Amino acid sequence: MTSQPTPQFDAVDIIRAKRDHQVLTADQINWVINAYTDGTVADYQMAALNMAILLNGMNREEISTWTNAMIHTGERMDFSALQFPTSDKHSTGGVGDKITLPLAPLVAVFDVAVPQLSGRGLGHTGGTLDKLESIRGWRAALTNDEMMRQLDTIGAVICQAGSGLAPADRKLYALRDVTGTVEAIPLIASSIMSKKIAEGTGALVLDVKVGSGAFMKNEQDARTLAQTMVDLGKDAGVNTVALLTNMTTPLGRTVGNALEVRESVEVLAGGGPTDVVDLTVALAVEMLAAAGKPVAEDEVRAALQDGRAMDKWRQMIAAQDGDNDAPLPVAAEQQQILAPESGVLATLDAYDVGVASWRLGAGRARKEDPVQAGAGIELHAKPGDTVTAGQPLMTLHTDTPERFERALETAGKSFTIAEQADASATTLIYDRIS
Amino acid sequence: MTSQPTPQFDAVDIIRAKRDHQVLTADQINWVINAYTDGTVADYQMAALNMAILLNGMNREEISTWTNAMIHTGERMDFSALQFPTSDKHSTGGVGDKITLPLAPLVAVFDVAVPQLSGRGLGHTGGTLDKLESIRGWRAALTNDEMMRQLDTIGAVICQAGSGLAPADRKLYALRDVTGTVEAIPLIASSIMSKKIAEGTGALVLDVKVGSGAFMKNEQDARTLAQTMVDLGKDAGVNTVALLTNMTTPLGRTVGNALEVRESVEVLAGGGPTDVVDLTVALAVEMLAAAGKPVAEDEVRAALQDGRAMDKWRQMIAAQDGDNDAPLPVAAEQQQILAPESGVLATLDAYDVGVASWRLGAGRARKEDPVQAGAGIELHAKPGDTVTAGQPLMTLHTDTPERFERALETAGKSFTIAEQADASATTLIYDRIS
Repeated sequence: MTSQPTPQFDAVDIIRAKRDHQVLTADQINWVINAYTDGTVADYQMAALNMAILLNGMNREEISTWTNAMIHTGERMDFSALQFPTSDKHSTGGVGDKITLPLAPLVAVFDVAVPQLSGRGLGHTGGTLDKLESIRGWRAALTNDEMMRQLDTIGAVICQAGSGLAPADRKLYALRDVTGTVEAIPLIASSIMSKKIAEGTGALVLDVKVGSGAFMKNEQDARTLAQTMVDLGKDAGVNTVALLTNMTTPLGRTVGNALEVRESVEVLAGGGPTDVVDLTVALAVEMLAAAGKPVAEDEVRAALQDGRAMDKWRQMIAAQDGDNDAPLPVAAEQQQILAPESGVLATLDAYDVGVASWRLGAGRARKEDPVQAGAGIELHAKPGDTVTAGQPLMTLHTDTPERFERALETAGKSFTIAEQADASATTLIYDRIS
Repeated sequence: MTSQPTPQFDAVDIIRAKRDHQVLTADQINWVINAYTDGTVADYQMAALNMAILLNGMNREEISTWTNAMIHTGERMDFSALQFPTSDKHSTGGVGDKITLPLAPLVAVFDVAVPQLSGRGLGHTGGTLDKLESIRGWRAALTNDEMMRQLDTIGAVICQAGSGLAPADRKLYALRDVTGTVEAIPLIASSIMSKKIAEGTGALVLDVKVGSGAFMKNEQDARTLAQTMVDLGKDAGVNTVALLTNMTTPLGRTVGNALEVRESVEVLAGGGPTDVVDLTVALAVEMLAAAGKPVAEDEVRAALQDGRAMDKWRQMIAAQDGDNDAPLPVAAEQQQILAPESGVLATLDAYDVGVASWRLGAGRARKEDPVQAGAGIELHAKPGDTVTAGQPLMTLHTDTPERFERALETAGKSFTIAEQADASATTLIYDRIS
């Protein structure tokens, strides 16, 4: 069999087709993704195409082809030699979302392996690797062999995604970031799913956040994104389900790197805030079911209470050279915000809290920036809690006190006190999409 | 008075605003045009913005601000010191459109100066400079002083537009060409009008072509473009009118550089095809009226018959070192297409004829390509003419006979023979917009 030469296409014809509401062919999509990756298609051409996709959309088949084309620009991993089935989770990102930390070891307790290839944070939501790097000695970068060995022995790994997975996506994401084309559902879905499918997980649970602190501000967009990703997963043979969850208010009572690790360890010790525990358990139940090893919710919850999840956590951290017993970093300076009146904390806006934490030094503005391990915010009240005038509502932490002023501007307007809580702040899971 | 610093904007915010159907502010538009011209805004960002403009549009005020911003990136010319008022014409481009050649000297006969700053052809329509360069010795590049002197003494000049006029447009046009964003009416209108306004003409007549051989394929789009440009002209104090004219079939009986010069000289000698004469006279009447020196159609027509327009032409060509008496180049090879049956030539498609002429060597595929002076097509029949099986319908000319095959593919399917002509091919002027 002789190899077929790739048909030659012209970038302008493909841009025009999408601009004029046409459906792109598989050959067009495969050509443009490869040609963009190798530099034949210029950034300015891909930028115009991305804007046309954002405004005119792609159908299910186009999105699936686009995703597969991105996967084929890089390597694919294969977990089939492992002794356990694999199940992964992806969150679209939220404020105080430390769920991955207790979730990965919790699922591993039940002999389902969790390969969490994660990233660093940019903007107002934190990154899982940034959080774990506040643990002394812990390292994010593993070789493929190290990762496989850890999955086979401990059953859980949280590490840096290698650069070999879907390199087209990395180039495309950087371009979308500077061309106002991030917010295209087909492009968001294919970006997330190309990496998850290339990673080779057998099952996948998506935590699609809705609300001020999330990427998707309204439920309809979040639902469309969730359904698009679930379809992509199924098309690729990955058993995929999605939960639509609330991100109008931060998850838990801490926002920031070391602060969130501390709270995660509390959850693994059987304590911690109810919302973090409930969402961790709900996602674990989904991940286990999706991997073909269903476990009842009570049993999952028990593994947090009886120390089995904590044991897995300590093994997982130690395997990546983290010191489980070292004290977590604490920021040099603190400042409190007090309740200006008595009543019920009605709302606590996730976006405002996220931005305030970012301004304190917990997040980065540019990829190259460092983060402060100790910076962030402790929340002393959550929506629905009764508060008394003068009591502390939150404590702001930073190593660089000149950051307080701008953080206080945002944190100070993040809450409202009223006679009763806003119902929108207290629902945790809106829906399940499969 | 201290100078205000330009407010700092972010390209991504501006792209997002247009993407989300917002009206851009004057500050945003001025910033983005200047920042693109100086390289602060990258090509990929402008490409995304152009696509958002193409798909979401701009209102009259935005287009006017955009046009003015482009004008302010370069120099403005000033014809106020001339002894004559000025009036210019711009055609959106068509097949066999040599109207500028007889028109400029014809208008100058009546003491209205015509500053025709022209370009070269790209694609299936020819360029005015390419045509005139088939005259031995004629040079397109004049200094500003030479141009002014010629306008003041002869009253007509056709020369190359200097690079100082609206440099933002040159950069933007090159980008649009490779990003599928040429066909945006706000961008087309501002591109044309920024150069015409910067040129400093007092009056302007637009010949907006409609039909297969034109940029605008349907009348509604052409009408919108014409109205947009007329509005822009008026906003800038340029007395502007537009004619919507037919480009379903080529103008005149020749397509190609030297062939079109020959036909133009026939018109200046009082002969030539009716459609070319009629459109030349109609545009001259409009240009004179727009300049505040109305002349009756009969008087204008008389100047073609009595040699006054020819005298101006010979002066204009000689002033730019052209040899009026040198023979025009003739292509080395000819081939005829014969009528396959008897009847009436019902249609003769402008686009197909334009592409065939281009393939024969009359046009260029890339900016750097040369053109053949003698290449092109002579049309022996026009829609409405009775034809007999076996009679020549057209003669194809080229210096490079290997070009005949692909040209014949297109020319051979350019016409239909039926019992009567298609009415759409015989109307010359559809409407006047002012």
